Amino acid sequence: MKKHPHFADQLVEAMKAKDSAVCVGLDPRWDRMPSFLVNKMVEEHGQTTRAVAYAFVEFCKGIIDGVKDVAVAVKPQIAFFEQYGFQGLWAFEEVCRYAADNGLLVIADAKRGDIGSTCEAYAKAFLGGVEIMGEKQFPVMAHSVTVNAYLGYDGVSPFLDACGEHGKGIFVLVKTSNPSSGDLQDRVTRDEEMPIYELMANFVEGWGFDHIGEYGYHFVGAVVGATYPQEAKRLRELMPHTFFLVPGYGAQGGGAEDVAPCFNEDGFGAVVNSSRGIIFAYEKNGATKDGSDYAECAFDAAEAMRLDLNRVRKS
Amino acid sequence: MKKHPHFADQLVEAMKAKDSAVCVGLDPRWDRMPSFLVNKMVEEHGQTTRAVAYAFVEFCKGIIDGVKDVAVAVKPQIAFFEQYGFQGLWAFEEVCRYAADNGLLVIADAKRGDIGSTCEAYAKAFLGGVEIMGEKQFPVMAHSVTVNAYLGYDGVSPFLDACGEHGKGIFVLVKTSNPSSGDLQDRVTRDEEMPIYELMANFVEGWGFDHIGEYGYHFVGAVVGATYPQEAKRLRELMPHTFFLVPGYGAQGGGAEDVAPCFNEDGFGAVVNSSRGIIFAYEKNGATKDGSDYAECAFDAAEAMRLDLNRVRKS
Repeated sequence: MKKHPHFADQLVEAMKAKDSAVCVGLDPRWDRMPSFLVNKMVEEHGQTTRAVAYAFVEFCKGIIDGVKDVAVAVKPQIAFFEQYGFQGLWAFEEVCRYAADNGLLVIADAKRGDIGSTCEAYAKAFLGGVEIMGEKQFPVMAHSVTVNAYLGYDGVSPFLDACGEHGKGIFVLVKTSNPSSGDLQDRVTRDEEMPIYELMANFVEGWGFDHIGEYGYHFVGAVVGATYPQEAKRLRELMPHTFFLVPGYGAQGGGAEDVAPCFNEDGFGAVVNSSRGIIFAYEKNGATKDGSDYAECAFDAAEAMRLDLNRVRKS
Repeated sequence: MKKHPHFADQLVEAMKAKDSAVCVGLDPRWDRMPSFLVNKMVEEHGQTTRAVAYAFVEFCKGIIDGVKDVAVAVKPQIAFFEQYGFQGLWAFEEVCRYAADNGLLVIADAKRGDIGSTCEAYAKAFLGGVEIMGEKQFPVMAHSVTVNAYLGYDGVSPFLDACGEHGKGIFVLVKTSNPSSGDLQDRVTRDEEMPIYELMANFVEGWGFDHIGEYGYHFVGAVVGATYPQEAKRLRELMPHTFFLVPGYGAQGGGAEDVAPCFNEDGFGAVVNSSRGIIFAYEKNGATKDGSDYAECAFDAAEAMRLDLNRVRKS
């Protein structure tokens, strides 16, 4: 049996090769698709979820073509696909596969989590593949998935098993980027005298500790929002071996200075995500009326982000 | 515009009409499908995710036919479908629609939750439907969905809006049934001196308070595991207007006495879920070799559960 490369090692090597910490979020929205695409798909498929699915696939493939040399990863957000039902999920699968085929690491942003026996199914869905009468199949081609650990360890361990076996990774929600993330995550515990997000950070570092790769990082990553730089600084200290997935740069308000604390001294340890700021850059900067230069606009935005991030990280 | 009936009112009325608090969990597993179904589908569709999807649809339709007069709701667990990709999600949609058409309330067990703008997409996926050029479409026909609120209020509010507008409901994870649910949920906060699950209970009761229906219940339900009866008792006090979805009866070890504290004095306020104990009852009790009497076995198990629960609740 061939040994899969360690997920965190793949991340570091991609960051080195492209001199980049950029992750591009694929959050397609029907009402923000370029008009040339909408017109084409509705003409071919009518006002159907099928038309939306085909538009999403073509749109995301264009973005992938545009950013593949400057981004290390893409993060398709499954909610935007899932709302169009099975046609949407078909599009999600197509997009993941195309990104992987083009040398991008795929982070499926699904925030899954459930009790152990159910969680095994999610681990198969996104990481391990399913077996049908002895034959392994991978409907979704992702390298990692985001995980919500409200249910505790046994809602995470099936993912860990799949990571170890298949060279994949997870990113556990620690401190999320949204305004009300503090409702629960900032509560301070009585016994440990630490906020819940720090408690979760200790879980993450512990879950990953036996799985550290060549570059000093394990495959249990953490989601840490760019919108909370003070918390990020503390979390970097608590999780020295953990890769951060940092959402919130760009449209959500985070800048390079805000994400700087997420990187380690080695210049690695974090990938920073921007979704709307890159994939819909054509709305602001496009030179065509029908949005047909959206991929070039995405490249420009991703390249500017790459340089912006490299200012604040050692490389 | 026609006014949708309130979700909690629909639940109470279904419980009255069927004199039942039974919810049947639809967690299909390929390796536990009756052999007659496996053989038929593989013959027709080969060893494909399509064969699995067709088997799941036929299996679940049989279960629904079997239990529809004694169960008030079904709870399809999307993970078991999602692992087979878009074919699996197609099956999930078929199953939800068939259950709704047969007078069952559908609780999509998806445990979704994300930042506000993304959460809107999930709220559309499961509750509100999507609009394609002014035309509303509902890929998934569910009456409610389970929600993970680790992200706080703005990860829940899009669901609340959809509930109010469409007569639907949610069940927020409060105290889950799995062994390690205490890892996070049992931590006591310093300022409130209460475990996280009680804090979450207060959130739930607060989020629902402005949306109380005719029978005194709002549409923001809570997931409270049957495996923690002491906690359930306290949670019943903290959330007098909240409907509980109670997993963990049967295969996970909970009995009628354990779930008794989840009901209110009026005999309502909770539906109790059993999955494996009902849908795979044929493995223990079936009289046929190929599992072709699985629907009758499911009926027997659901009816026994109905009577068992009615012993401990006032009706």
